[in-house]
Amino acid sequence: MKNRNTQHVTQSTNIKWHPHHVTKEGRAILKRQRPCILWFTGLSGSGKSTIANAVEEMLFGLGKHTYLLDGDNIRHGLNSDLGFDEAARVENIRRIGEVAKLFVDSGLIVLTAFISPFRKDREQVRRMVEEGEFIEIFVDTPLEICEQRDPKGLYKKARAGEIGNFTGIDSPYEAPEKPEIDLKTEGMTPLEAAQIVVTYLQSKGYLNAE
Amino acid sequence: MKNRNTQHVTQSTNIKWHPHHVTKEGRAILKRQRPCILWFTGLSGSGKSTIANAVEEMLFGLGKHTYLLDGDNIRHGLNSDLGFDEAARVENIRRIGEVAKLFVDSGLIVLTAFISPFRKDREQVRRMVEEGEFIEIFVDTPLEICEQRDPKGLYKKARAGEIGNFTGIDSPYEAPEKPEIDLKTEGMTPLEAAQIVVTYLQSKGYLNAE
Repeated sequence: MKNRNTQHVTQSTNIKWHPHHVTKEGRAILKRQRPCILWFTGLSGSGKSTIANAVEEMLFGLGKHTYLLDGDNIRHGLNSDLGFDEAARVENIRRIGEVAKLFVDSGLIVLTAFISPFRKDREQVRRMVEEGEFIEIFVDTPLEICEQRDPKGLYKKARAGEIGNFTGIDSPYEAPEKPEIDLKTEGMTPLEAAQIVVTYLQSKGYLNAE
Repeated sequence: MKNRNTQHVTQSTNIKWHPHHVTKEGRAILKRQRPCILWFTGLSGSGKSTIANAVEEMLFGLGKHTYLLDGDNIRHGLNSDLGFDEAARVENIRRIGEVAKLFVDSGLIVLTAFISPFRKDREQVRRMVEEGEFIEIFVDTPLEICEQRDPKGLYKKARAGEIGNFTGIDSPYEAPEKPEIDLKTEGMTPLEAAQIVVTYLQSKGYLNAE
């Protein structure tokens, strides 16, 4: 009886087996979460990276599966061939969107922290993924504060004319019109800002999908 | 007492908190696996995609966190701007390598299924990641068999001169010299080939990292 069963399994394996693609749904279920893109946008120095890191840390603490795309891991790698003129900046965001989409497909909650100043580039990414998978987070810090902080000394250089096409100085920043989350960061710590994002995800069911 | 504790937490939160970046190690530990790239290389029709899908399915069944990069999700998305001349093929593989590296950083076991005919392009990807993170899998199916299968009718077109630069016909395939796994697929089912890969991963400790 045992032999007959074994033989049967072997036969059906050899003859009938076809690979079943592991699906996006399957990967998400394994991770008990609803994958999405948390797309942070805002001026240089607005706090995008700091807040995104804090959100990732909180999600990690909740056992959620995340990944953060930022200048550090994108500009030196995938997009190291791109410059900073407008065409290159558009291509930069396009590729980040495509990679973020792959991460969503893999079941992760992916965070991106790029200035991404142009509305149409962000909308293009939104259209790449399904309804509810693109969460636009406006790190809404006034230019004056960003320039005052100037953590990398970039505003000073831009004002001195040493850097051209600098967002907020001689290149526009197109603020989101209907972001899913508008973080008015004045008087808020990064941790408080991050908590708003995590609370949003919890309330919308991203963190407890079955 | 309770109030004092709460106040203490709030104060230390506001004053001392700094984001701790979630690390590659942290992400991998959460997933109880050692992230790596399973780089399948071989001729068109050799069985790369079929075997890679079977491996992913088996790993998924073991509760492992995986993602598969292949023509379907790369050529229509991230690399939709690339053609098929040699420069574009090099850039195609470079970007796939960079994205695979990001997936390893995110803690996943990432599978790639591309012909990737040039040794130096594959070696470039190997050098992008750490020792032991690049597992080259040669889907070692003779040209005659691939051409006989010709699942997409591409060999026929290449022989008729309708497609140029076709690997194995008028463009070289540089076989791996020291692949981590050499799958001599003749007389083997895709499931058997996939089992060899999974056994390799188990024996090397990729699937049970603490």
